Order: sequence, then C-alpha cells, then structure tokens
Amino acid sequence: MKCRVCRGKAAIKIRRHNAAFCPEHFTAHAVRQVEKAIKDFDMVTFEDRLLLGVSGGKDSLAMWDILTRLGYSVDGVYLELGIGGELSEEEGHAYSDVSRQYCESFASDRGLKLEIIDLSTRYGFTIPEAATETRRVPCSVCGLSKRYILNQAALDGEYDALVMGHNLDDEAATLMGNVLQWNTEYIGRQHPVLPASGNGLIRKVKPLIRLAERETAAYCILNGIDYEVEECPMVEGNTGIKMKEWLNELEERAPGAKHRFLFGYLENAADRFSSEQPHLTTCQSCGQPTIGETCAFCRLEIRMKA
Amino acid sequence: MKCRVCRGKAAIKIRRHNAAFCPEHFTAHAVRQVEKAIKDFDMVTFEDRLLLGVSGGKDSLAMWDILTRLGYSVDGVYLELGIGGELSEEEGHAYSDVSRQYCESFASDRGLKLEIIDLSTRYGFTIPEAATETRRVPCSVCGLSKRYILNQAALDGEYDALVMGHNLDDEAATLMGNVLQWNTEYIGRQHPVLPASGNGLIRKVKPLIRLAERETAAYCILNGIDYEVEECPMVEGNTGIKMKEWLNELEERAPGAKHRFLFGYLENAADRFSSEQPHLTTCQSCGQPTIGETCAFCRLEIRMKA
Repeated sequence: MKCRVCRGKAAIKIRRHNAAFCPEHFTAHAVRQVEKAIKDFDMVTFEDRLLLGVSGGKDSLAMWDILTRLGYSVDGVYLELGIGGELSEEEGHAYSDVSRQYCESFASDRGLKLEIIDLSTRYGFTIPEAATETRRVPCSVCGLSKRYILNQAALDGEYDALVMGHNLDDEAATLMGNVLQWNTEYIGRQHPVLPASGNGLIRKVKPLIRLAERETAAYCILNGIDYEVEECPMVEGNTGIKMKEWLNELEERAPGAKHRFLFGYLENAADRFSSEQPHLTTCQSCGQPTIGETCAFCRLEIRMKA
Repeated sequence: MKCRVCRGKAAIKIRRHNAAFCPEHFTAHAVRQVEKAIKDFDMVTFEDRLLLGVSGGKDSLAMWDILTRLGYSVDGVYLELGIGGELSEEEGHAYSDVSRQYCESFASDRGLKLEIIDLSTRYGFTIPEAATETRRVPCSVCGLSKRYILNQAALDGEYDALVMGHNLDDEAATLMGNVLQWNTEYIGRQHPVLPASGNGLIRKVKPLIRLAERETAAYCILNGIDYEVEECPMVEGNTGIKMKEWLNELEERAPGAKHRFLFGYLENAADRFSSEQPHLTTCQSCGQPTIGETCAFCRLEIRMKA
C-alpha cells in the first residue's frame, strides 16, 4: 500500500477516497479536509476569535491542532463534568481528571489558552448526580449542560464563534437517528454552521465534518497527540453509539455511504426542512435563549439545588 | 407464546406490534392491516376493477388472497420473463415456468381470472437476453419491462387500478436507498398511491405496505398457499437485497424501525418532496408516458430487434 502523493509506505487507507497516505501526506490531507469544510460552508475567518470545546478525546484535540496549523486563533474550554470510573492505566484517577490532563498537556505544550470550568464548583452538581436525580440517560443531561455552558463561556469571553469537534460519524449518526423517525424539527436544525441569534446564541461551527472518527484518531496518533482513548464510563444507553455501529456496517459494504448521506442532505434536502426552527424566547432565569419560560439548564440547576 | 386474541398457542410473534397470534387470528390481523392501508390512503373502492401483477411469490399471492377475502374484484396478470435456472425439486423446469404454475394453480383453485403475457412472444426477447445485450443488471431491465407491460395490460383491460405486491420491507428499502443519496426526485415519487395521469399512466396502489416480508410468507404458509420460495436466479447485483439485510439488522435492534421510517416519511416528510415529479410527455413510438421522446421500454425493444 503506497501513499497516493509520494508513493512512500502508506500508514492509512481511506476507502471512501480510494486512497492511501503516508503519515506526512495524511496529515496534509486531514488539514485540507478541514480547510475545505470551513470554506464550503463559510464557517469562520482568520480575524475571528474562536472558542473550542475540548474533551480530551481525539476529535477535539485533532480539531485544535488542525485549526492552529491553519493559522486560526483558537482558545480551548474544558468542562469538568465530575465523571468517575477507574481507569486501568491510571488507577485511582477519575475519567474527568484524566481527560482534563490531556487537554492541559496539549495546551501547555503549544502555549495555547485553556479555560477550565468545573460544573460542580460553578453550578453545584456533577453529571452523575444530575443523571441520578433526574433519572435521565447521562448523555442527555450531559449534552444539555455542555450546550448551555459552552455557549455561556463563548458569550462571556466575547468570542466570535464556538467550534465543536463533531466528526463525520457523529453528524451522520445524528442525521440518521432523526431521519429514521422523520423528526423534521431536529432534521432541520442539523447544519455545519448554526448562525448566531440576537438573543444570546453564539455562532456554532463544525469544521471536522469531512473527517471520519478513525481519521481523527489516526491524525492524533500520527502527530503524537496524546488523547483519552477510553470511552466515557457513563455511555450506557447512548443510542448514538448503536447508530454508529449500524452505519459502520453500511460503510463496510458501501465505502463513502456516510459521506454521501450527510453531504447529500446538506446539498439537496436541508432547505426543505429549514422552516422548522422553533421560536426562541429569553430564559427568565438566566437570559439565554430557550423555547419555554425557563431554559432546560436552569430547570436542571433549580432541581439540583432543591 | 400465546395468541393476543384467543390466548391459544401462537404461531407467529410480531415484535414491532409486541404481539403474537394463532393462525386464525394472524390471518385476521394481516387482512386488517391491508384493510387499514387501503382506507388510510384511500387506495381503491369495491366498485373498482383491479389488476394485480402476480409473480408466483409470497407477496403477490398473499395480496390476491387478502383482497379477494375483503371482497375486491381482482384479476391477475403474470409476466413470463423467460428466466431459466434449474430448480432442485423440479429438475428441468425453468424458474419462470414454475412461478407461472404457482399463479395458475392459485387462480384456477379459486376461479380467479389470470392473464399470461409472454415477453418473448409479444415483444421478441427475454430478460436474460435483454440483460446480456444491454449489459445492464437484470433487475434493472426487468423492472422497467414490468412497469411498462403491467401498465399497458391495465390500460388494455380498462382496469381502474393496478395493484402491486410491494411489502413493508420493499418500500422501506427503496426509500432508504434513495434517502442515503438524497435522490430527491425518487424520494418524491414514493407513495402507496400513484395517481393516474391523463396521458396513459394508470393508478397504482400498494395495499401490502403494512405487512413485512416474513408476515406475507407466514400468511401463505398458514393459509395453505403454495408459492415460489426460490429467489430469482438472476438476482445477483440487486442492491435492494443488501439494503434489506442492512435494515433487518436495524429492525433486530429496534423493532418497528422500518415501519416508523416508512410511515414517518409518509406522514411528516413526503409533501416536502412532492414537487419533484418530472414532466411527462408521450412516447413517439408507443404512446405511453415518458420523460424523453421514446420511452425506455421502446428503446429496449428497438435495440433487441436490431
């Protein structure tokens, strides 16, 4: 297997591009894919101050590395969620602690700015506590908390856009989950750029959507980026993972299927669902946008304080 | 496992309905599903003269049986496609011959009218010959020939509607195949009722869409209907079969997923794609509707005569 560019020994084969790459040219390929996503969807400019939500996993650290290489000005924000679980290599360390350390090392090695927000210190609860109290799937409570706090952090820091590390697999799985039920409101909300709204929603962009999960992992490995390889210990009940497994079976049979599904939607069908955006008002408690009187995060916070 | 209705010994479990049935009540259930599909989509009336394309397989024979039970007036039409392949039980008999015999037995046992159209006698070629000559996948040549000839047969016999034996699995697989590519024109054409058009397209209805493949098979077995169980020997290269396998893996994980996908589309999304219908003109050779000057079937016929 030879590199498509230099004919040297290839390190990774990408079936959907019918191509293989050596480490150097794979890195160049990955950077180009991000560049193309930013350009095609007019995501951000070099003048923008960007805030990236980092988890310590492969996607967000690869994203930070690639955007920095491209010359963008990107600060990171890590949310300490208070998730435990013993890790084999680092016995006694909780999952969240280890994840944070990967982010801190990455940032300090490169002189990048990283903000740490501790859910427990600032809001008085952890994700495991919130999941137990509300009897909801942890991923659901975690997702709504992340969306809220990252948006607030970007507003507080007066950033121009919030960058999310969602990859091709994430986006295809989300879209498929919604298409299988024809949940038209959720379908209509899925886009690589979610514009800012006057009432407190910051612009959100997803420059990683042209790279698959195994490609962001390969990017980290080939570029010496240490990341948290363990899955979150609270992942049980996450339907996105099953959806990804099922889509991987399709991809195995038809390489490129995930890409065609996601980008076909964006090119040919997204505008048919775009009228579905809900009317947003202002949360009476915190002032962030919401569809009800009090936003979901404030309701969670109030419940956790009770 | 007990029958949901009579608590007798169940013969089949249907996970998506979270129910099991004895033979008698499964039959009643299947008949009700067809009744509901006809009613929900306003497919046909008891005054309509219906023509059903029968292949000798489980779907079309179950369809004929159920519609007759419900009191509809349904004639059958069998297309002799000239497909060979030795069958183990009936050595020396070609696939098409055996399929035809199942249709003939079914019709004569019940005093129903069956028309036989021989592709070779009437149009001068068989499906294997056409596939070889055009170097196309047999299913593709076969599909376009069937659509054309069945429509013509219904027009010739002055029927009110053409009934197709597509089941839930068929329809979900077709929809998924088109959604994976967001082929909006094909998505927009998928509906359980395709209305007649003034220029020669007869009304087409699919009353079997609420029954899955294994349910039509069970219906035949439990009601003593003999059908062709072998798959067509020319099926290689048929992408629909792979799609069905993949959807079955989903159904296994999430019973009801296929039903929700198909009916969710019809309820929530079909009208977003309905403007995609192509403009039809009249084939200059045969007078049937087409999107070009000469319809695909006439072009095939001309090529086979050359």
